[in-house]
Amino acid sequence: MNSLLKFRRPLSSSLTSLSLQRLSTTLHYVFEEKKERTSFIHPTAIVHPNAVIGQGVSVGPLCTIGPSAKLGNGCQMHPSSHIFGNTELGSHCVLMTGAVVGDDLPGHTVIGCNNIIGHHAVVGIKCQDMKYKLGDECFLDVGDNNEIREFTSIHRSSKSRDRTVIGDNNLIMGSCHIAHDCKIGNNNIFANTTLLAGHVIVEIKSLRTAYRKIFMPSNTNSMGFDERLSEVEHNEDLGSVPAVCSMLQSIRDSFTENRRGICKFRQWSSS
Amino acid sequence: MNSLLKFRRPLSSSLTSLSLQRLSTTLHYVFEEKKERTSFIHPTAIVHPNAVIGQGVSVGPLCTIGPSAKLGNGCQMHPSSHIFGNTELGSHCVLMTGAVVGDDLPGHTVIGCNNIIGHHAVVGIKCQDMKYKLGDECFLDVGDNNEIREFTSIHRSSKSRDRTVIGDNNLIMGSCHIAHDCKIGNNNIFANTTLLAGHVIVEIKSLRTAYRKIFMPSNTNSMGFDERLSEVEHNEDLGSVPAVCSMLQSIRDSFTENRRGICKFRQWSSS
Amino acid sequence: MNSLLKFRRPLSSSLTSLSLQRLSTTLHYVFEEKKERTSFIHPTAIVHPNAVIGQGVSVGPLCTIGPSAKLGNGCQMHPSSHIFGNTELGSHCVLMTGAVVGDDLPGHTVIGCNNIIGHHAVVGIKCQDMKYKLGDECFLDVGDNNEIREFTSIHRSSKSRDRTVIGDNNLIMGSCHIAHDCKIGNNNIFANTTLLAGHVIVEIKSLRTAYRKIFMPSNTNSMGFDERLSEVEHNEDLGSVPAVCSMLQSIRDSFTENRRGICKFRQWSSS
Repeated sequence: MNSLLKFRRPLSSSLTSLSLQRLSTTLHYVFEEKKERTSFIHPTAIVHPNAVIGQGVSVGPLCTIGPSAKLGNGCQMHPSSHIFGNTELGSHCVLMTGAVVGDDLPGHTVIGCNNIIGHHAVVGIKCQDMKYKLGDECFLDVGDNNEIREFTSIHRSSKSRDRTVIGDNNLIMGSCHIAHDCKIGNNNIFANTTLLAGHVIVEIKSLRTAYRKIFMPSNTNSMGFDERLSEVEHNEDLGSVPAVCSMLQSIRDSFTENRRGICKFRQWSSS
Repeated sequence: MNSLLKFRRPLSSSLTSLSLQRLSTTLHYVFEEKKERTSFIHPTAIVHPNAVIGQGVSVGPLCTIGPSAKLGNGCQMHPSSHIFGNTELGSHCVLMTGAVVGDDLPGHTVIGCNNIIGHHAVVGIKCQDMKYKLGDECFLDVGDNNEIREFTSIHRSSKSRDRTVIGDNNLIMGSCHIAHDCKIGNNNIFANTTLLAGHVIVEIKSLRTAYRKIFMPSNTNSMGFDERLSEVEHNEDLGSVPAVCSMLQSIRDSFTENRRGICKFRQWSSS
Repeated sequence: MNSLLKFRRPLSSSLTSLSLQRLSTTLHYVFEEKKERTSFIHPTAIVHPNAVIGQGVSVGPLCTIGPSAKLGNGCQMHPSSHIFGNTELGSHCVLMTGAVVGDDLPGHTVIGCNNIIGHHAVVGIKCQDMKYKLGDECFLDVGDNNEIREFTSIHRSSKSRDRTVIGDNNLIMGSCHIAHDCKIGNNNIFANTTLLAGHVIVEIKSLRTAYRKIFMPSNTNSMGFDERLSEVEHNEDLGSVPAVCSMLQSIRDSFTENRRGICKFRQWSSS
């Protein structure tokens, strides 16, 4: 992608580009779907020459892009949006006005394809965990096709051996907070001002699938309970999901401890 | 108002205007009450030449104004505020730093006179309703004299035949959310982080007036209950207010269904 | 500090500094710890010539600083952060991207040393109290070593004879709101979206210390209850803390009114 740097060259050409005529035309560009493959960077945007910019990228006025940023093909940055730190965006991501992605910390922020980062949202910034030490590596990985709305904050991990993870196809509405080391699966919808503290796991769909396979089999005669449990444990997709593992362990424990299938949590709360 | 475009011409004049001296003086302008009728646009603001700017308008540094925007007389844009899409502001509106009004979608955002849009607030952006289809027209209408505080989000309608509506004289405090197709009346106060989902109707004053006219008449001998009900129904102001219509229907239903005036909702919850 | 104004001179030098090369290098500067004592102001930042800038200050791209601002040594302003009004920052404060400190109102905003103001946070702006009259003086005083996170709003006082006060070493997490005339002590942690209305007093540590001294003495034989009460009243640190005074008064009232030590509030709620 380094050859793409040439798309940013016109910037340094001359300041005649700062005339009103040019500014206005280019502002207009930002809001139009770009069909061509050339990238456009508004003359008032500040892009570090080491940043790697894909094809067909639009960088609007008053944006900044730091030296370690990588933007995939077709990304759009609306006016006053910013990319900091060691941050990679897949193709066709959109940063709305005021959005901030990444932070100048060791570690990285990796955002997949087709994600929308809403107005003034902050994604991939330092966590609030007081155990985090400045200088430690911290990480955020986001999948594809997520819509993250205005005023949402998503923090990086608090430790170098953990990471904050968001899967695919999630709708995270306005003013949500996803703290350090959370693991969010796929296809979730978080309503406005949903707040997740550190280390929260939300993987509704996988959990529901596993639950259905174990307790609501389509043909109850085909397999016994133990077999169904074992099947989920060895299922390639489900067996590795932390929330599913946790549920399986809870079910196994209820047998071992002769608790008639009532999970530990329920037992605690009734006592 | 097209003749006013000349106020924006100095921008394209020459870049000598970008010297510190000029920038500083003009920054100062933004914070002062403007008595004169000439408009001022800071040289670092990016204003599309098709935008229509009224008299005595102040556009601060680092603002952007899109091609379909119309600003009434005396509007003030503080630094880093933005107007997008097909958006009209009445006279003497103020956009605080970071405020975003409008979105590049079909439909419109219409803001009345004397409104204050707070720091980083987003007003007239795309809704979060998953039924909204990109390309559909969507609308937001805001009346006069509203104060909308920091981090508030107000969304446009989810359908082209509906609209989000906010009346006059409301104080909407920080971090509130008013979703698609809400109808907010006049003189309401929303405390911080008040969240309204889609299609919520808040019209306290009209409802109270109607309630008083029906149930608490100043002279009970003058009219019977039915007459009072009918009078509110045909009242020019009240009869068209959705919340009032809904209350009237509920009262009429209670008679039809012989429910002794207890509304359907109460009957449900007691059963 | 007026002699430091020379550090801002290079800005007005010439627009050759606006070439991509220069912008990029200087953007990089913003994110590095500055060891040297010279201040750096990005050529796209707009700094009023009357502003007072300390030594070793970094002002990033697209920032604005108003005419009555004072920045202590080593302050850092990340891109798109703003300082308005009569505002003073102590040494080594950091404004993250989009942060807004101060407002163009009579009165002042005074921020101590080593404070971090998070992304898009607004600190020292006009209150929401409807009793506040435009033109009245209003105040915010913040101590040292506070971390104020993204989307937090902290308002100035509603009256010229009161002030909003925040002490030292507080961690105020994302989307918190501290309204007019609040008094926040030291070492508090506010979790996300903690909302304090006007005139709220939070001084947990002092209160706990006073409580322990009165009700949980390490040696119960050494002093009687009255003596312990009196000791706290005359304690130099605790006796002047409003929350402690209020607790002491409540305890004394419970004796006077023969309420067996149950505080007035509890009595009200049980009746």
